[in-house]
Amino acid sequence: MIKVAIVGYGNIGKAVYEAVSQSEDMKLVVIVSSKKNIAGAPVVDSIHALGAVDVAIICSPSRTVPGIASDLLARGISTVDSYDIHSSIVNVRARLDVIAKENGSVAITAAGWDPGSDSVIRTLFSAMIPKGITYTNFGPGMSMGHTVAVKAIPGVKDALSMTIPAGTGIHRRMVYIELEPGADFAEVADAIKQDDYFVHDETHVFQVDSVNSLKDMGHGVNLVRKGVSGTTHNQRVEFNMSINNPALTGQILVSAARAASKQEPGCYTMIEIAPIDFLPGNPEQLIRQLV
Amino acid sequence: MIKVAIVGYGNIGKAVYEAVSQSEDMKLVVIVSSKKNIAGAPVVDSIHALGAVDVAIICSPSRTVPGIASDLLARGISTVDSYDIHSSIVNVRARLDVIAKENGSVAITAAGWDPGSDSVIRTLFSAMIPKGITYTNFGPGMSMGHTVAVKAIPGVKDALSMTIPAGTGIHRRMVYIELEPGADFAEVADAIKQDDYFVHDETHVFQVDSVNSLKDMGHGVNLVRKGVSGTTHNQRVEFNMSINNPALTGQILVSAARAASKQEPGCYTMIEIAPIDFLPGNPEQLIRQLV
Repeated sequence: MIKVAIVGYGNIGKAVYEAVSQSEDMKLVVIVSSKKNIAGAPVVDSIHALGAVDVAIICSPSRTVPGIASDLLARGISTVDSYDIHSSIVNVRARLDVIAKENGSVAITAAGWDPGSDSVIRTLFSAMIPKGITYTNFGPGMSMGHTVAVKAIPGVKDALSMTIPAGTGIHRRMVYIELEPGADFAEVADAIKQDDYFVHDETHVFQVDSVNSLKDMGHGVNLVRKGVSGTTHNQRVEFNMSINNPALTGQILVSAARAASKQEPGCYTMIEIAPIDFLPGNPEQLIRQLV
Repeated sequence: MIKVAIVGYGNIGKAVYEAVSQSEDMKLVVIVSSKKNIAGAPVVDSIHALGAVDVAIICSPSRTVPGIASDLLARGISTVDSYDIHSSIVNVRARLDVIAKENGSVAITAAGWDPGSDSVIRTLFSAMIPKGITYTNFGPGMSMGHTVAVKAIPGVKDALSMTIPAGTGIHRRMVYIELEPGADFAEVADAIKQDDYFVHDETHVFQVDSVNSLKDMGHGVNLVRKGVSGTTHNQRVEFNMSINNPALTGQILVSAARAASKQEPGCYTMIEIAPIDFLPGNPEQLIRQLV
């Protein structure tokens, strides 16, 4: 049994809890959270009180991940995370790799769906079709980053920014806002459209009575590649998904926690791990079923 | 530079030749074929005359693959193949694994598109959605096995069996035949429909003047999984492709030849290999581009 800790208990932490509960090869040992009453597992309020675990699944905001992972890896505890700041992944991986190797632990970073399973798909598509263009189209689904950016604009009481795929990696932004008393809708809408997050995209802003009543954790991806295998053109591959966002992220983190127990010390992204390692069970049986 | 041999020069061998010619990290050293005049590379008529190569890409019929691979692996030459007899893959892998480990060589078996890239997709989908059903739908495209089965029926001069996807892993068979002089179409059509290859599928048989004029190397896949991540239902993922069949098989074999140069001795299927290993170039640069 793989002894698991969950670090952070928001939407992703809860989804990880559910996925661990369905995994016969894992045992949840402890949850790190400031919340006191979580049914089903002991709760501690600091990663320094974790105790004996094999792997910690880090479910805290991305900016806090490198620090927490570094602490845990240095104590010989393996980590998995869904760190999603694409531009920093190479540096975080390099930093965690040194600590993991020095302390005999394993880190799997950027193990969500993008970065994560989408990265595996993009890599496989490039191996099948080395020349050509890949487009990753997101949505329809809520963008956390864009929603936070709207909420920071003066006059906005609550907001939701939906990402709508328009093809070829271009996205439309549908923004729903509640206004503060006295705020002017036209002024606020203009400020949103001028924001760095929105200025390059087609953006529509709508005033609503209740942002909360629009929220839905569904999301989607359409990932396409068209190009050349060998010297043969017009080779086409496509990946589509329609999923509950935290549920998929939580499940991939749990599958990655299993894979962590099978790697040599070091830090890995998902494209550096044999896909079979994410699954429980006997390798020959898995090969019989899946190959 | 990875020194490559191509063993067998039919449709797949030619596609491998083209894909190697586009790979800057590979050099084609020799082709094993009974054909004498192949432009661009020295030709020998036996695998015993291969000389110094790093990896041999086996492009001969599946039933001949285990014997050829065993011979080469025993001489320290790594091999890749697209062996496609699903029920025997586990046994072939076990047999080649012993020989490879004894001789410091690497084998990658079943490295086409199904088995092969489809296997990687099925494995990733299971890691994302552990509970549920996966359907692999093939076509429209020519089935080699079914076509050979039709050709073996008395009265058939030439034949083509097309696989048509009907969803949920069910396939329709569209069979086009030229008759031998004096053969009775109704009798032959009935014999085809009673054949083991066709008796369980919806099968339609058509008499045509020229089977050859219908042949097209295009093929397709629609691979879908619907199920449960953690405790959340109705998670949906899908993979589609529309490709030239030998061109994709040849390209995957060449990508696998590259991966072979990065593995420890032993025999692997594609789901046992980190996807990044199929690609040329610096790992950090690939992570930056793809993760």
